[in-house]
Amino acid sequence: MTDVSSSDATARVPASQPLVAAALRTLTGVRAAAPLVHNITNYVVMNNSANALLALGASPAMVHALEEVEDFTSISSALVVNIGTLSPSWVSAMQRAAVRAGERGIPWVLDPVGAGATAYRTDTARALLALRPTVLRGNASEILAVAGDVGGTKGVDSTAGSEAALEAATILAQRHGTTVVITGAEDIATDGARVVRCGNGHALMPRVTGLGCSLSAVTGACLAVERDALHAAAAALAIFGVAGELAAAQAAGPGSLQVALLDALYTLDVDTLASRARLS
Amino acid sequence: MTDVSSSDATARVPASQPLVAAALRTLTGVRAAAPLVHNITNYVVMNNSANALLALGASPAMVHALEEVEDFTSISSALVVNIGTLSPSWVSAMQRAAVRAGERGIPWVLDPVGAGATAYRTDTARALLALRPTVLRGNASEILAVAGDVGGTKGVDSTAGSEAALEAATILAQRHGTTVVITGAEDIATDGARVVRCGNGHALMPRVTGLGCSLSAVTGACLAVERDALHAAAAALAIFGVAGELAAAQAAGPGSLQVALLDALYTLDVDTLASRARLS
Amino acid sequence: MTDVSSSDATARVPASQPLVAAALRTLTGVRAAAPLVHNITNYVVMNNSANALLALGASPAMVHALEEVEDFTSISSALVVNIGTLSPSWVSAMQRAAVRAGERGIPWVLDPVGAGATAYRTDTARALLALRPTVLRGNASEILAVAGDVGGTKGVDSTAGSEAALEAATILAQRHGTTVVITGAEDIATDGARVVRCGNGHALMPRVTGLGCSLSAVTGACLAVERDALHAAAAALAIFGVAGELAAAQAAGPGSLQVALLDALYTLDVDTLASRARLS
Repeated sequence: MTDVSSSDATARVPASQPLVAAALRTLTGVRAAAPLVHNITNYVVMNNSANALLALGASPAMVHALEEVEDFTSISSALVVNIGTLSPSWVSAMQRAAVRAGERGIPWVLDPVGAGATAYRTDTARALLALRPTVLRGNASEILAVAGDVGGTKGVDSTAGSEAALEAATILAQRHGTTVVITGAEDIATDGARVVRCGNGHALMPRVTGLGCSLSAVTGACLAVERDALHAAAAALAIFGVAGELAAAQAAGPGSLQVALLDALYTLDVDTLASRARLS
Repeated sequence: MTDVSSSDATARVPASQPLVAAALRTLTGVRAAAPLVHNITNYVVMNNSANALLALGASPAMVHALEEVEDFTSISSALVVNIGTLSPSWVSAMQRAAVRAGERGIPWVLDPVGAGATAYRTDTARALLALRPTVLRGNASEILAVAGDVGGTKGVDSTAGSEAALEAATILAQRHGTTVVITGAEDIATDGARVVRCGNGHALMPRVTGLGCSLSAVTGACLAVERDALHAAAAALAIFGVAGELAAAQAAGPGSLQVALLDALYTLDVDTLASRARLS
Repeated sequence: MTDVSSSDATARVPASQPLVAAALRTLTGVRAAAPLVHNITNYVVMNNSANALLALGASPAMVHALEEVEDFTSISSALVVNIGTLSPSWVSAMQRAAVRAGERGIPWVLDPVGAGATAYRTDTARALLALRPTVLRGNASEILAVAGDVGGTKGVDSTAGSEAALEAATILAQRHGTTVVITGAEDIATDGARVVRCGNGHALMPRVTGLGCSLSAVTGACLAVERDALHAAAAALAIFGVAGELAAAQAAGPGSLQVALLDALYTLDVDTLASRARLS
């Protein structure tokens, strides 16, 4: 891991690329601060999300009991809420943690996994969105479902394109004061005023379960060190997407991709990120 | 991934091998349809089961909340129920989902992990079996325990051979209208009338946790596209066993076997499956 | 896997190294007995803990339902209790299993993950410690928190050094009749009278989630075959640390380290362990 100071990192990109400069600052910032990221996430991805955060340099924790969830949010630098395998007591924990994060000014990410697939899932996502997450990240189907334009969702995999969800995302961003990230073949982020596109990533990545969830976790780590939420979200997209590209270049399939992705998050240096990040 | 149409695939095997032809049709069918497979499974294997399904070309989802479980089964092409880390609310969800699958004609798989180890586990497995799963898959100890011939089970690993459980499996198949799959050094499947044996697989596979559970998940995907349950079960055994052999050939131990197995499920082509499948 | 009988293994180390001799005996003993290890552990690490036990040669099971937890402990050779993702019903299961283990003379390990981070976590760890685990294993921050010297814990990663926690560990060991293992850059174990240090391991290991939890699980397997708890704990430290060193030598980052570690636990032979174990 070759870290450089954030000023050094910034110096390597032209002033015309403030998004890339922010991504480099964010990468070095996470490694320097090792922020504690509180995750209330689904059973499927807990291990991989924790490993993605550790590989990047953050300090992950998975805590969901009602007896301690608010205490834990209070000592954390960011919160990540993911409804992938939700149930009532977990939803209560998510809500309490989100409220506490709001009270304390701790940035938090909402990942509405599978919104649109069932009414319970859609309703839960909307109730959490009303608590004003710093970032809402989903695929196009999920964002459309949360926005009320249901119909395209099939399970947890998206059937709609990112561009089609941008209008809905913009409305959600403005209404809830959040930054919305739509991931897919192309990734788009908007805070309701600005729009950022990220062209990084690889077609094999959707064949590994929970990489979207890992991205949400990484977004939490980025928010802990970069308070412009759109810049933090764009940084996470570029970091995760570039790591995915590096991993795919040496992977024989989805099994080895997952392993190589964790290695790439660990070894990614600012020069590689600067030269490969495709943010606009 | 080199897919061919099912007619092409069938054309490559002699008419004397209808089981292999069905396995090739099933492999191409799963990749073409990407069926949504609803899993209610144990915490240990959720990630690996989801990854096995994604690698093969199916679309997995893990959903267990009573508030949504029947809604989700209704939109799925197959259901997989696995009692590995059961508790009362999960068992209720399994039962509701199984009933809904039965009502809608959605094929489903029951994996009675650890039946025989405790009375709770055995009773739960039997209550679910009474709901008439399309396929019941377990090791010999589990099948014997479910059938009432308890005694050989030690934890979740089998201590009995597959052949010894065939008589019990035949009775279960006839009584419950199910296809029973017994996995072990040799794999055997029966629908109570016909018997299929599969000689694929590798001795290192039991040293990776939850590969039997992944096989159950893959069986669900196969049932979604092949309605002859015995043929679907045989296809799953051959596909998973051949992938395991390919993975073991390049693995240094159980860690790399798991990774290579996911890669092999992704890259497996019909020619390789046709030449390596050992079904009789 | 090249096993030798325990007498052969012992013969290869000088009489001046009784700890190494015990580690070799323990390694061969686990492989010969394949002890059933009952785990009540956290969602994040279940898969990896099960795989570590299988790779080493033990037979893992994850069972937590109140309806069966005591039955399962009764048929097991060791119990591992880990509070990583605790909630009230799980804590009840942990307590019942621990009581049963105590009644039956079944050795058990307590892993107080994140003790000190919240009051709920610290209180739960202390209540379980009062049930007199055979081994208590944590990082320095967790051991200090359990002992009452709270303050240094940040989430689940340690901020204190092992040496600083030795005095607290000695008091805990004497008070509760337990062997306390403090893991970190250097690992220390004490039964309140004797102190063992282990210099094995690698700096990359903390970048993989749950390796401490896997070590606790491996300690359970070692206790099943070696009744001197301090020797069993030292054996687990050496086995796991040497496997980590072998894995790190060929890993490109934390993703490949996890994979290679499972392979190394499977392939580790007594000669390699004898030559690399750093126990004093």
